[in-house]
Amino acid sequence: MEKATEELRAKGKAAREASRRLAYLSTEIKNQALHNIADDLLTKKDEILAANQKDCQEAKASGMDAAMLDRLMLDKSRLESIAQDVRTVAALPDPVGEVFDMRTLPNGLLIGRKRVPLGVIGTMYESRPNVTIDISVLCLKSGNAVVLRGGKEAINSNLALAGLVQAAIARAGMPEGAVQFVDNTDRSLVSHLLKMSDYIDLFIPRGGAELIIFVRENAAMPVVGAGVSVCHTYVDRSADVAKAVAITFNAKVQRPSVCNALDTLLIHTNIAQNCLPRIAAEWSKAGVEMHCDERALTILKADSTLKLVPATKKDWGKEFLALVAAVRVVDSLDEALEHIERYGSGADEAIVTEDYSAAMRFLNEVDAGCVYVNASTRFTDGGQFGLGAEVAISTQKMHARGPLGLRELTSYKWIVFGDGHVRP
Amino acid sequence: MEKATEELRAKGKAAREASRRLAYLSTEIKNQALHNIADDLLTKKDEILAANQKDCQEAKASGMDAAMLDRLMLDKSRLESIAQDVRTVAALPDPVGEVFDMRTLPNGLLIGRKRVPLGVIGTMYESRPNVTIDISVLCLKSGNAVVLRGGKEAINSNLALAGLVQAAIARAGMPEGAVQFVDNTDRSLVSHLLKMSDYIDLFIPRGGAELIIFVRENAAMPVVGAGVSVCHTYVDRSADVAKAVAITFNAKVQRPSVCNALDTLLIHTNIAQNCLPRIAAEWSKAGVEMHCDERALTILKADSTLKLVPATKKDWGKEFLALVAAVRVVDSLDEALEHIERYGSGADEAIVTEDYSAAMRFLNEVDAGCVYVNASTRFTDGGQFGLGAEVAISTQKMHARGPLGLRELTSYKWIVFGDGHVRP
Repeated sequence: MEKATEELRAKGKAAREASRRLAYLSTEIKNQALHNIADDLLTKKDEILAANQKDCQEAKASGMDAAMLDRLMLDKSRLESIAQDVRTVAALPDPVGEVFDMRTLPNGLLIGRKRVPLGVIGTMYESRPNVTIDISVLCLKSGNAVVLRGGKEAINSNLALAGLVQAAIARAGMPEGAVQFVDNTDRSLVSHLLKMSDYIDLFIPRGGAELIIFVRENAAMPVVGAGVSVCHTYVDRSADVAKAVAITFNAKVQRPSVCNALDTLLIHTNIAQNCLPRIAAEWSKAGVEMHCDERALTILKADSTLKLVPATKKDWGKEFLALVAAVRVVDSLDEALEHIERYGSGADEAIVTEDYSAAMRFLNEVDAGCVYVNASTRFTDGGQFGLGAEVAISTQKMHARGPLGLRELTSYKWIVFGDGHVRP
Repeated sequence: MEKATEELRAKGKAAREASRRLAYLSTEIKNQALHNIADDLLTKKDEILAANQKDCQEAKASGMDAAMLDRLMLDKSRLESIAQDVRTVAALPDPVGEVFDMRTLPNGLLIGRKRVPLGVIGTMYESRPNVTIDISVLCLKSGNAVVLRGGKEAINSNLALAGLVQAAIARAGMPEGAVQFVDNTDRSLVSHLLKMSDYIDLFIPRGGAELIIFVRENAAMPVVGAGVSVCHTYVDRSADVAKAVAITFNAKVQRPSVCNALDTLLIHTNIAQNCLPRIAAEWSKAGVEMHCDERALTILKADSTLKLVPATKKDWGKEFLALVAAVRVVDSLDEALEHIERYGSGADEAIVTEDYSAAMRFLNEVDAGCVYVNASTRFTDGGQFGLGAEVAISTQKMHARGPLGLRELTSYKWIVFGDGHVRP
């Protein structure tokens, strides 16, 4: 065990040392490294697929369910699509080196801020082996070294992919050590990894809410990752009914298992009689179960085809991650704002309204990472927001909020050009 | 004890509730609140000074030393100067509400980021009662609520000042609860305060390094504050000797007790023979003790008026906070960069050089909050950097680095204007 933790610390140290060089590596070398990775994913596909085959067979033998197995599995077309994603990141602008707030002070000092990488990113993820490539590429493009800790069930695939990345980047002249892979999947080592704040500047867990909460509670370094995300959509009395139906359907049904899907529908009493049955009818076609407060039940109960359940206290502020929605009728915008303030988790919140002042109040007063007017909360995503790539979603306020792109994997330093200046 | 922690949590809760309203309060109301504080500092000066008198008498009786006593003491001219500082903050631009990265996406969604306050700032500070006003004003201007925990020895002054602030801001229409003062100075309550991450978003310790390290190690929420700051100045072989002498004198002598003062002088061997004795002679006039490596000793030992001590390993990477400097002769810029990489703490680092490429390499390769060419590290300060006011200095990379102004007490939210948009 002691030897294993020493090896782990050695990997952290190597990543830290590499990160010093990575910080001022040219964009050309970084892009070349990424293109090498994409090339090798295609030329070394037989090797990768053989390793993955081994993982899949072992997983099948140990009784892994079909959905998990599908996440674990690689094939030629998946590798091609991963390679394509790598080239997409290569084509994005390099955030490192951007200079901003540059100005000359009255005393003649020229001063500004220059964007630099954070240093070393740690990550822990579950069965999907593509994360090995995905997170490596995002870290490298933003000039960060990375320490990867993948799931036990994908160990052969991950070893092959990490080895591929290490060879590909070395060929481009990137410092050795920039990508470290923890090949010992002993669970007890994870707590050591999460305490290595001397070597790891930021930890990004990728996987289910359980993993993220575990990392948040145990990491000694800052952590970025969406915890519980409770999303509300409020249909105001002035809402356009067609928009309300389309938006609530999309927000609940398009991909119910993700963090930006609708959890609670709030609807103004003046429009509920007309609008709520139409929302419910659409939801019903997709099999949505509705946990309704009393007034919503009264409006909907005539339609026996709906899956209605009386709401309990536990339904407010709950993240369902399934085809279930809580529904509450409110008397005013203020009541909706209070509900969101009380039960929201600072993730994604939307209003559907044609009333200008209601829209502006909602945008101003709701405290959340992403606040929408007349759009589905499903848009919360780095790609959809035009960031090119997404590292994670942040539900915290410090450093960065909402979808995180390459720029959010950076910090800055102050640069000061003097001519013998001393402080009076 | 249980009652005391309940009271503490009630204060946290009240601050959290107030922060929701503060977040979208107009700049006019915030500025009016600040002007009310400045006015009251003058009109209620007798009350404040009487309370402060009580603290000073008790401190004197308990044997407090003269320097500490001076920090604790208020008088009419100090109150006037504090009031003036408050008006200076009132005159600064409001960071809240700034909209940036706003653009229309190909699908027609209008999307951007809007600056918002962090929420609730916690702070703990030592004897200087002016911090009660200083930090309250910076938090309020940036739309944050604040929980104040001052030192026991200033309790009467702080109670009077906190009461003044609370009354002054209420008169301007600011939410009650925006400023909370912990009047129970029981030390065991501090650990409870530092665990209240549900109510406090960021903790800013103000005081000595010991206090800051204590808070860093015990706080459950993010902490901003300079820990150990080891500052190097490297005099390159191509340095202008007059600039080198002026800059190293200023960096070491102008205020040796602060975090941006010079700790280690690195000097290129080609210039050391000529330049080092001149730096040493100036330092000597101010009483600086020099902890020299062998080569520096050889150069300087002829001058018997200098305070020379052979350097030991412990001198490298040490923050002296006194009229002491470590001195090392290096053979190259690379050796200087390696020394800084190994012993630096990411605070303030400077090069003195007339060589363009050396300057650019230093700026690019040194990983620190503030990197200087031909200027004294003493400039690291919110006021000197043109930020108007300074909340703290950050030696971390996440969120913000170097001197923190009002903007660094904020986060942002994404705002999205749609027209019935749904995700395909």
